[in-house]
This record gives sequence, structure tokens and C-alpha cells, in this order.
Amino acid sequence: MRLERFLVRGAGEPDNGADFKRLATVHTFGDSWPRTDVLDTRARALVSVTIAAALGTLEPLRGQLRIALNNGVTAEEIVEVFIHLEAYAGAARAFDGYRIALQVFAERAQTDGG
Amino acid sequence: MRLERFLVRGAGEPDNGADFKRLATVHTFGDSWPRTDVLDTRARALVSVTIAAALGTLEPLRGQLRIALNNGVTAEEIVEVFIHLEAYAGAARAFDGYRIALQVFAERAQTDGG
Amino acid sequence: MRLERFLVRGAGEPDNGADFKRLATVHTFGDSWPRTDVLDTRARALVSVTIAAALGTLEPLRGQLRIALNNGVTAEEIVEVFIHLEAYAGAARAFDGYRIALQVFAERAQTDGG
Amino acid sequence: MRLERFLVRGAGEPDNGADFKRLATVHTFGDSWPRTDVLDTRARALVSVTIAAALGTLEPLRGQLRIALNNGVTAEEIVEVFIHLEAYAGAARAFDGYRIALQVFAERAQTDGG
Amino acid sequence: MRLERFLVRGAGEPDNGADFKRLATVHTFGDSWPRTDVLDTRARALVSVTIAAALGTLEPLRGQLRIALNNGVTAEEIVEVFIHLEAYAGAARAFDGYRIALQVFAERAQTDGG
Amino acid sequence: MRLERFLVRGAGEPDNGADFKRLATVHTFGDSWPRTDVLDTRARALVSVTIAAALGTLEPLRGQLRIALNNGVTAEEIVEVFIHLEAYAGAARAFDGYRIALQVFAERAQTDGG
Repeated sequence: MRLERFLVRGAGEPDNGADFKRLATVHTFGDSWPRTDVLDTRARALVSVTIAAALGTLEPLRGQLRIALNNGVTAEEIVEVFIHLEAYAGAARAFDGYRIALQVFAERAQTDGG
Repeated sequence: MRLERFLVRGAGEPDNGADFKRLATVHTFGDSWPRTDVLDTRARALVSVTIAAALGTLEPLRGQLRIALNNGVTAEEIVEVFIHLEAYAGAARAFDGYRIALQVFAERAQTDGG
Repeated sequence: MRLERFLVRGAGEPDNGADFKRLATVHTFGDSWPRTDVLDTRARALVSVTIAAALGTLEPLRGQLRIALNNGVTAEEIVEVFIHLEAYAGAARAFDGYRIALQVFAERAQTDGG
Repeated sequence: MRLERFLVRGAGEPDNGADFKRLATVHTFGDSWPRTDVLDTRARALVSVTIAAALGTLEPLRGQLRIALNNGVTAEEIVEVFIHLEAYAGAARAFDGYRIALQVFAERAQTDGG
Repeated sequence: MRLERFLVRGAGEPDNGADFKRLATVHTFGDSWPRTDVLDTRARALVSVTIAAALGTLEPLRGQLRIALNNGVTAEEIVEVFIHLEAYAGAARAFDGYRIALQVFAERAQTDGG
Repeated sequence: MRLERFLVRGAGEPDNGADFKRLATVHTFGDSWPRTDVLDTRARALVSVTIAAALGTLEPLRGQLRIALNNGVTAEEIVEVFIHLEAYAGAARAFDGYRIALQVFAERAQTDGG
């Protein structure tokens, strides 16, 4: 539903906005995620979370955290990624991303608890 | 108006806050933008949007998007910058910035539509 | 109080979340800040603000700004860090962080004024 | 020739190395550069140089500088991009990239002078 | 051997240089890598390669690539990380790091071939 | 001498290259460093080293390390900056910059020892 909302054309968004969304979707979900022979979806999900957290792109990180949890990655594994990230990319970047992880864990707890 | 609001002294902001704003303004609007002989204002606006989007500085990106649209850059051209950015700087950074572009396109549509 | 709130376990946060927080706290407040022989706390606070601002990690920057002001760093000194940052790391990064500094200066003015 | 050399399989490079190169090439030269209706090749070349310089990816920057000069961008225009980059992304990033620009200008001068 | 060489005191390196190396080693190899219950060494190695590549820290990336190959990660898996990185962090960052991967693959091929 | 060499016009460098160097020099050495009332030169030197190391701009970092040592900052203080940087910006960034610091310490030891 969130994805569909994103794909809807925004007010004032020009025609080629659809090209941006299509190309970005093809380059990620089309060209990389389906390559599960060598790296399976769970491993790719961990790598995706790591990239978004290391870059400090917080909203894409939120999306990747949801994708990871939806594909069998556990919250424990995500926390371990942040422990590794804290060591190698530092406490500033790790804390910034962990705030988002806490929000996604909480939304998941609410859904599961309902 | 927005710029004026920024230049107003904030609560608790010390005297040298004015120096920060003055120097930052001189270094950008004073020293670089007026150099229109080789790169005109529209080209500089595209470069400015690209820098802010590549760095992931989202509020400065919002400002640069408004400056660009106010100086004759079209929304289509901005989208093409994001298509190029998606290829070279990746989908995470590009999507993060494109959210801001969608907001600026929408505020522009509202103003123009009014 | 803010720190305590952070250390409380979040909804849906797994057990090893406590390990993340403990390790990140040990690596910073345990292992680096107490080394005051060569760089005292005020110098470390300036370095901390500089790191968070240069990385563009805005919420960690907010925390470092509060720590700095609580440890005798003046608002004037913080502004000078942003003037230096503007020159070396650019106006985009500097303005993005300065917004946070203005918010922290204002919360401080309110507290002091009360 | 340089590109061809890159596309040759390296010692110890596994089979899917060809997929990496193919996808990266398709996403950039296949999907973005040919979109010349709204942003022409010269504008894309300036945007490419800006992205690589803002990210601090020095070898890709070298490649983009060569592409730009080969597509009608002038050395003067490239310098103006660095002047704008110095203001918005700072002197550290700008100087780091400008070293590479000086090397590319020099190799070009040698070729043209021969 | 390489690690030992690093741990030797450099010319002009002050006494607390040993503290820097010790703390950085404890924070990574001491505190994070041994946590193999939830994320095993191979998964941590992929995460480490991803962090170093996403940050663009090329010499640390070289070290992480060697660690990964020494711990059972295959060259194919590393290439898949770069394919995912190319999509999410872009062709500029991915190509910059892939040069280092090619060098490490080649040194490995030479060793294995001997 | 190094600075002078830099300011010499490079082969193929266009006329406005002098403008780039002049503006970058004015924005840093002209506009920020002389502001010694609130932050003295030693404090600015530590901030400069921190910015260049946090950004991962290695050649500018080398220059800032030399400036720092020439202005009374001790090697011990520089190491403490890297200890703080390791905690907040991570081991990957800190190690990458520390290599440069070791090189600068060694060149200094040679000069002093001669």
C-alpha cells in the first residue's frame, strides 16, 4: 500500500517522474534482488539495511527494515547489524539509524500484538 | 521571506551567528552564483541541486529546488537530475531526495493552481 | 532524563538491543570521553560537535550540542565551529547542522530565561 | 581502450563479475545518458562530474572528467563546477577532487600539444 | 603479518598511538565479531565489506575483503554485494570499491595458483 | 613551498583555475582561520583535522595535519582526536585517516631527527 501510494503521481510531478520511479525500481527490485542463487533474499535484506544505515539515508532505511522483517530477517539480526555498524561506521551513524529501527520494531509489535 | 526569517537572530543565538550567516551567504550567493559568464544561473542551479542531493542534505536541497524552479529550471530537468543521480549515487540517496522534490513540486502546483 | 528514556527498552526491541546501547555507550562515554589528560572535556565536546556536523547526523548532533553547552562550551564557540565547517565542509552541510544549533540555542534560552 | 581493459575479466574474478559490469553499465550508459531530450549530454556530463566530486569518489571522478571533456564540456566549465562545489560542499572535498581535475587537464594538454 | 606490521609503533608516533590501535581493535574484533550466535562470521564479513564499500573507505575495504575471503565468503558472494551496492549506493561508489575487489581477487589468484 | 607549488598554474589549467584557488583560500585562510578571538588557532587546527578525517578527504587531511603540527598541536592531541573519531565516526574512517597521520608523524620525525 505504501509502495502504491509512492507510485501514484504527485501534484506537480512531471511526466518523467514515472521514468525515475520505474528505473529506480528496475535497478533494485528488478536487477538485484531476484539474484538469489549466490546471495539469498535474507542476505540481501541484511546488506540493504547495512547500505542504507551506512549512508545515513533514514527513510530508505525505514523501508529496508520493513522489507527485511517481512522476509524472515529477525529483529535480533538487525540489532547485530547495528552493533557491527557502531564499531565500523561509528556511534553517530549507528544511533541515528537505530532510532528508525526502534520505530519499525514498535510498529511491528503493535501489528503483531493486535 | 523565508530567507529573511532565517536571517533574523534566533533566541539564544550569539552575536557571531550573524557572521556565520554572512560568510555562508557571501561564499555562495556572493562569490559563486554571480559568475554567470561560463556557467549561467540555470546550469548553476542544476549543479546546486545535484550537490545537495548527492550529499543528502535534505533541507538545503529543498532550498536549492525552490531556487532552481524560480530561475527557469523545469521540473522535468530536475527529475532528469534525479534519474542520473539514481544511477551514479544510488537508489537510496536518490529516493531520499526525491521525496523532497515531490514536496516542492506539490507546493509549486498549489501556488500556480491558486 | 532523555538518556534514560533512550535506555528504556522499546516496544518490540529484542534482548540484544541492550547490548547495542551498552557497547555504543562504552565505546564513547566509557573509552573516549574520560581520556582528559591530553584533550580535556571541552575540547572533546568541540570535536564531537564537529564530527556529528561533518557526518550530517542531525539527531546525534543535537545531543552533542547539549553535551557541549552542559560542559562549558559557549554558544559563541559552537558558532565558530560552524564557520570553520562552512569553509571546509561547505554551506550545505553547515546550514543543515546550524538549524539544529539554533533549536538547541533556543531551548537553552528558554530554560535560562525561565 | 581504458573501458575495454576494465571489461576484460580480471585474474581471480568470478563469473558474475561480468554481471556487475554489465548492470552498472546498463544503469548508467544504457538507462540515463541517452535521455538527451530534457538534459543533453553536456548537461549530464556536468551533473556526472558534480556527483562524483560531491561523493569524493576520485577514480570515477577522473572517468567523468574525461567523458565531460570528450563531449564538449570545457575545462573552464569544469573549474566553475569546482568553484560552486567549494562553496556548497566545502574546500576539503573541492580540493581533493580538483587535484584529479588538474591531472586530467594536464593529460589533455599533453595530448593536444603532441 | 600485515596486522602485526600495523601494530608496530611508527616513527614519530606518540605513546597514545597504542591506545588508538587497542581501542579500535577491541571495539571491532573484541566486541562485535565474536558475537556469532545471531550473525555468524560469514554474515558479519559480508556486512563489514558492505559498510567499508558504502563509506568509500578503500584501504579498510581491502582489509575487509581479505578477512571475508579468509572466512569462507566466496568471491561470487562479494560480487553480489557489489551488484546490490551498485543499485542502492550507485555506480560511482560501487566502481570505486570494485577496483579494490579486483586487486584482492588477483592477489588471491596468484597465491592459490602458486 | 608545497602551497606555492599548488598555486602555480597547471598544464592545461584554464584561467579561472586561479579563481578557484583564490576563492577556496579566501574562504578558509582568509575568512575563518584569522577569527582567533573565540576559537584560537590550535582549536581551529583540531577542528580542521576532525573535519577532514570525518569527511574522509585524505590529501586535505594530510595538509591539515601538517598545519596542526606547525601551530603547536601535539601528536598526542591528534591521536586523541582519532580515538574520539573512532568512537563516533567508526573504525573504518578512523583507520583510513590514521594511516595518513602515521605518514605525517614519520616525515616530522625525520625532519626533527635530521
